[in-house]
Amino acid sequence: MAKKVLKFGGTSVGTIERILHVAKIIKKENDAGNEVIAVVSAMSGKTNELLKQSKTISEDFDKRELDVLLASGEQVTSALLAGALIKFGINSKSWLNWQIPILTEGENSNARIINMSTSSINKFLSEKGVAIIPGFQGISKVGDITTIGRGGSDATAVAIAKIFDADLCEIYTDVDGVYSTDPNKIPVAKKIDKISYDEMLELSSLGAKVMQSSAVQTAMMYNIPLEVKSTFTARQGTKIFDQDSIDYTKSVTGVAYSKDDAKITLVGVQDKPGVAANIFEPLSKNQINVDMVIQNISSDQKTTDITFTIKREDLLKTIEILKSNKTIQYESLNHNDKVSKISIVGAGMVSTPGITYRMFRSLADEKINILAISTSEIKLSVIISEDDTLKAIKKLHTVFDLD
Amino acid sequence: MAKKVLKFGGTSVGTIERILHVAKIIKKENDAGNEVIAVVSAMSGKTNELLKQSKTISEDFDKRELDVLLASGEQVTSALLAGALIKFGINSKSWLNWQIPILTEGENSNARIINMSTSSINKFLSEKGVAIIPGFQGISKVGDITTIGRGGSDATAVAIAKIFDADLCEIYTDVDGVYSTDPNKIPVAKKIDKISYDEMLELSSLGAKVMQSSAVQTAMMYNIPLEVKSTFTARQGTKIFDQDSIDYTKSVTGVAYSKDDAKITLVGVQDKPGVAANIFEPLSKNQINVDMVIQNISSDQKTTDITFTIKREDLLKTIEILKSNKTIQYESLNHNDKVSKISIVGAGMVSTPGITYRMFRSLADEKINILAISTSEIKLSVIISEDDTLKAIKKLHTVFDLD
Repeated sequence: MAKKVLKFGGTSVGTIERILHVAKIIKKENDAGNEVIAVVSAMSGKTNELLKQSKTISEDFDKRELDVLLASGEQVTSALLAGALIKFGINSKSWLNWQIPILTEGENSNARIINMSTSSINKFLSEKGVAIIPGFQGISKVGDITTIGRGGSDATAVAIAKIFDADLCEIYTDVDGVYSTDPNKIPVAKKIDKISYDEMLELSSLGAKVMQSSAVQTAMMYNIPLEVKSTFTARQGTKIFDQDSIDYTKSVTGVAYSKDDAKITLVGVQDKPGVAANIFEPLSKNQINVDMVIQNISSDQKTTDITFTIKREDLLKTIEILKSNKTIQYESLNHNDKVSKISIVGAGMVSTPGITYRMFRSLADEKINILAISTSEIKLSVIISEDDTLKAIKKLHTVFDLD
Repeated sequence: MAKKVLKFGGTSVGTIERILHVAKIIKKENDAGNEVIAVVSAMSGKTNELLKQSKTISEDFDKRELDVLLASGEQVTSALLAGALIKFGINSKSWLNWQIPILTEGENSNARIINMSTSSINKFLSEKGVAIIPGFQGISKVGDITTIGRGGSDATAVAIAKIFDADLCEIYTDVDGVYSTDPNKIPVAKKIDKISYDEMLELSSLGAKVMQSSAVQTAMMYNIPLEVKSTFTARQGTKIFDQDSIDYTKSVTGVAYSKDDAKITLVGVQDKPGVAANIFEPLSKNQINVDMVIQNISSDQKTTDITFTIKREDLLKTIEILKSNKTIQYESLNHNDKVSKISIVGAGMVSTPGITYRMFRSLADEKINILAISTSEIKLSVIISEDDTLKAIKKLHTVFDLD
């Protein structure tokens, strides 16, 4: 007997038929004697529909009222799922966030869960009841409805798992786990059975969007075991653990990539303290998200080259900001709007010598030119020409024994 | 400067465009210095859509969860309307029922509003804020969401008008008031400028469904002035007052009718105490709604004839129940499933002699046979053959100077 938090995403509850299917998954857990709290998203498409309505009224729709509006989506799913469970003879009840309550802090549309009351739900669970909780929302100290950002149902599930001291938090979604690379692009991509929080973070922020990154971070912080699995198959998913609990047989766990990137290089930047801040502060103020940053040691000790990547859609705006920036001096500005980032990720990398060399050699063998390199403890990323993306992923997937 | 409760029905807020239009109506009131509380229904079609979803899961969907589900509809409208007002520069805020709170008693789906807190909303109104409140719902003593029955937004509006001591409660809808008869059937039907609560009740329960009857009753009980008006025209609507405040120039205010009725006559019923109860109790227990009941004095002092009307769809079931009822004895059972009820309604009737005679004479002139008659202080109803409905309405409308 275990205490489990099960989270069902928008596609998992996208139709009445699917909600009935989810109810059957929960019934199975309940029949097995497990205590279950289910966290649900809005039915797929619902949040976008509500957002569109608000934007028709005003592009700058009031944030407090937007949260009241959006919160209705998960409320609907919660009631429908509780009703479906009751139909199947399970004692079930929806608990809206103000009924628990789930307290949040921070501004509307971007709040954080800080606490919640557990006594009445725990009592209900101990009587074999299944509690259904709408994800993505809470209430503020003054009693307003708040939401915690897109994808926030993952964060709700992990926070609930933490506060209720659950044994496991299962994230049900429309894919059956985390893959060694994009299965739509590389047919030999393999489902990963076990992965560490760190690796998951690197993979999810790089495009394997099966779970919200900040929810993974919270799970890592409190060591809450996660499992990502499909609502639509009975197959085992991907278990996400603490790094120490995983026995690494492979040095590289997966190959991730991000598309639609652009690269900018400032050549001959005057190398003095504060120059990087002067370059990136105006970009940040204009909501331009900078991904990789690489600065080479200057050979003449006076100038340096700074390369960084941004989303392709931000390229023109970024160039404009850089050119009008009087606080920096440089010789020239190069840019390339047809690049992509390929990363190999693996907690085993740090203890395996030669990974870097093998990556560069494999790419060279394929005549793929590396435009920039960036490394961390569990990740090695390179910027290459966009046209080489698929070739690079395939090669690395094979070289690191992931096929 | 007045304190007003404005209620907007489903069609009035049926699209984003209409919600923006409603916001303009409210802005006008706010600009004029009036304190405004707006009560809103779910966008038209929404409640039916949610109901249909629940029925797909189970025809007997759990009542507590059904209320959680349905309440989301008015929540959405409230947030959208508050957002629209804020866009127009009005200080506005939605107040969900648990935030006020609006306390109800009674079972889910059929609760009654018993109390609500006024202090924070009154403070907000005094600062020129417009409070938006979702109609049709409240919370129970144990903190569950409850709803108060279809059409319940009218009841919410009137309850709020009472508890906030409003000067006026305006019901905005898709018709521009109460008519002397059905304007779709009789083109010369006229909008009634002023009507008493009693007359409104008689007219609305007879088919002029512009406002929920129990809300009119509450308004009558607490003497809250009502006005029914159109959201889509600027024309004056129908004011609903206490009878004493109205100067009656006409004895008859309107001609109402109800279709799809059926008539049953039990001939030669043994006339003894309790026989009526024995007849109608099993019908009531089977949710069959009996409308008119007419019992003639028996000529032989031993038997009597009892005639009553029901909805046509209940006819077969009713006959079956009567035939299997061993507690009553009668000679024969007649039924007619092609009848309609025509009523003339008017608070001035009681002080005008000859109304009854004029009604019967007019129908006789048109060769319309009267199958049954029932009278009250402000209403006179006859059952006639369905085929004569239109002819009868036209004739009475003319005879009583309503054209």
